[in-house]
Amino acid sequence: MDRRHRVVVVGAGFGGLALVRSLEGVPVDVVLVDSNNFHTFQPLLYQVATAGLDSDDIAHPVRGIVARQGGDIDVRLGTVTDIDLEDRTVHFAEGPSLGYDELVLAAGAVTATYGVPGVAEHAFGLKHLTDALVLRAHVLQQFERVSVDRSLIDDGVLNVVIAGGGPTGVELAGGLVELFDRVLVKDFPALDVRRARVVLVEPADRLLATFSPRLSGMARRTLAGRGVEVVLGAGVAGTDGKVVELTDGRRIPVGTLVWTAGITASPLARQIADHLGPDALTRGGRIVVGPRLTIPGHDEVFVIGDLAGATDDAGELLPQVAPVAMQAGAYVASVIRARQDGEQPGRFRYRDKGSMATIGRHAAVAQLPGGIRLSGTPGWLAWLGLHLVMLVGFRNRVNVLVNWAWNYFTYDRASRLIVDQPPGKE
Amino acid sequence: MDRRHRVVVVGAGFGGLALVRSLEGVPVDVVLVDSNNFHTFQPLLYQVATAGLDSDDIAHPVRGIVARQGGDIDVRLGTVTDIDLEDRTVHFAEGPSLGYDELVLAAGAVTATYGVPGVAEHAFGLKHLTDALVLRAHVLQQFERVSVDRSLIDDGVLNVVIAGGGPTGVELAGGLVELFDRVLVKDFPALDVRRARVVLVEPADRLLATFSPRLSGMARRTLAGRGVEVVLGAGVAGTDGKVVELTDGRRIPVGTLVWTAGITASPLARQIADHLGPDALTRGGRIVVGPRLTIPGHDEVFVIGDLAGATDDAGELLPQVAPVAMQAGAYVASVIRARQDGEQPGRFRYRDKGSMATIGRHAAVAQLPGGIRLSGTPGWLAWLGLHLVMLVGFRNRVNVLVNWAWNYFTYDRASRLIVDQPPGKE
Repeated sequence: MDRRHRVVVVGAGFGGLALVRSLEGVPVDVVLVDSNNFHTFQPLLYQVATAGLDSDDIAHPVRGIVARQGGDIDVRLGTVTDIDLEDRTVHFAEGPSLGYDELVLAAGAVTATYGVPGVAEHAFGLKHLTDALVLRAHVLQQFERVSVDRSLIDDGVLNVVIAGGGPTGVELAGGLVELFDRVLVKDFPALDVRRARVVLVEPADRLLATFSPRLSGMARRTLAGRGVEVVLGAGVAGTDGKVVELTDGRRIPVGTLVWTAGITASPLARQIADHLGPDALTRGGRIVVGPRLTIPGHDEVFVIGDLAGATDDAGELLPQVAPVAMQAGAYVASVIRARQDGEQPGRFRYRDKGSMATIGRHAAVAQLPGGIRLSGTPGWLAWLGLHLVMLVGFRNRVNVLVNWAWNYFTYDRASRLIVDQPPGKE
Repeated sequence: MDRRHRVVVVGAGFGGLALVRSLEGVPVDVVLVDSNNFHTFQPLLYQVATAGLDSDDIAHPVRGIVARQGGDIDVRLGTVTDIDLEDRTVHFAEGPSLGYDELVLAAGAVTATYGVPGVAEHAFGLKHLTDALVLRAHVLQQFERVSVDRSLIDDGVLNVVIAGGGPTGVELAGGLVELFDRVLVKDFPALDVRRARVVLVEPADRLLATFSPRLSGMARRTLAGRGVEVVLGAGVAGTDGKVVELTDGRRIPVGTLVWTAGITASPLARQIADHLGPDALTRGGRIVVGPRLTIPGHDEVFVIGDLAGATDDAGELLPQVAPVAMQAGAYVASVIRARQDGEQPGRFRYRDKGSMATIGRHAAVAQLPGGIRLSGTPGWLAWLGLHLVMLVGFRNRVNVLVNWAWNYFTYDRASRLIVDQPPGKE
């Protein structure tokens, strides 16, 4: 073998980046693969969608992150079309294939619409940077349409229905009412912006199912107090793009339906199942992994993050959140390092450091280890601080701080731009 | 008549905004029309194209600018398809038409390729925000392609030819070599980035024709010293997208051709000519106007900015630059105000306050009234200060300052994102 041991990492999300960072000093060649040339700070996508932040506040060039770290790390911009587990080769839509000695799949998850009629055609997702930019442009466009033809307001063109009362749905709902009530009300003084409904629909009997019932209740009451209509115990049954029908029979006229009600593993999981059979996948299309996060029978293939069906000691699937991905990335790096030293490490164990969701100005809920629960302004400040620290890159942090301070003191949202960006020429 | 005197302003560029601002306090209804919901700070487009700034640093929502001003100003997002000078009505591609008592056309200019073969199909312009985003993505994409297939570097895929040695061409050339030599060289350590040529092509015998020959020479020497190949006395004769042929017979293999070699008046000018005949237009497709910037025979229709064929006392066409547009906007506001008071103001006179072009770090040329010439670091500092002050909106200014400081001290360009933004659903 005329080359060093090569580790290929597919996906530059939280898991992939944590892994690459933790591999520093390990004598292996690393190739980090992603279909975008930037890492997306997904927890703040809703801020781009609600015009508080712009692209480069939450997206950071992968090559820049990697270059800062130094070491033998290569970056490959490309779309993975297949993985040959026997030949240990990754194939791409464009350009030559790539052999590996160890492979880490960290490709995350995509929006799942579960076949609900009309959702795939008419709903907006919120998983990618482009999703957020397109959603922002669409919502603003509806206000522009109504300002030209007032009768559209009676057709519900300003209404937004958000399907899914998890953190993304809650944060988006909170961000939208702030955008409407604080900013667009001034942008469109001739419109009765209060008639723009924001409806958050959740089939379970409470929002934020992974939080304590008390925090769930607080989130619901805070949102309701700010003008969000929270519908519990009913889901979206279907839509034709103009009306959203709920499972309880209610019909809501809309201009915008946002689907945050489900995710499924990246299409990469299906490629693995094509090779190993359907048993290779578990709930949510996630890839079954053993205690060391490897695919059964393939100790050289790790899966981490939202793509992995990793379990805790009780056999329960771990949640698909950034902290799990980041801890798994660091863990896999330690396994790769240990193997280089001829050692065998223990199993992966996730330490829950808590979770947070923000509802808007001075309102967030946080559930921390040791039974600590924060809400209201303390929760909001904790949320602000944590997200600033987590944001990759000093410049992003300063810009986000400037933008947040600006939004806070002026109630403005400076990024409310409708940018139609045609695809690049080739 | 059951409505107030209505002034319709087409175009929210420097001219249109200056006009609307100067109309404050005048008892007329104003409708500001633009096809985008944001004002673009065109002089900094090249910074977006070279990944130093992102969209919301140089684009500001029109409704926000107008709302801050107060008064009876309406905003209409729409594309003007025709202007009926007899009925005094503006027609739109979408939605109802709009009647006016006075009309101000400030729709600016678009890229003109003069029929040079292949340019319309293969070249990138730099007049709109989307132009800059598409150009940025394309240039970065060429480096990603070459990093996968090194042989492409021999085909010249990394080369950029910029046609046109005016301020835009000079600033873009300077920005590109900085991006290449300071940032991409670190992003792509395995590539010989020095082989990426930046060629600036200008048919005249010097760059920056509107500046003094001494400053032109300085700009050329500074660019050359930083690695830009400056070609004088030859233009682009044609391209097939892979090779650019110059009028002197030279052939340059390219991955990117940028066309900053010409502009022509907005298509609005043709609509006017359709009504008034070809004599309504002058050089560059600009609309002929009288000494008060009105269309002959239509005292109620003003034309300002790049769209206007305004002349100085000697009958020379005024340059198509932001200061002319802004002064014309303020002047037309004074005419509208005077007419309300039954007065007749004097003719429009442009006062030249100088011009500036930046070449990069510590290098700019500035030509100020009174024969003051700045170059090097003093010119650069003057340029920085002026552009910061001119940028609409405090938040933009702070963000731009943060980004510039970041770029300056780290030699980084944080906005090097390849974002393919699909068009919004409707």
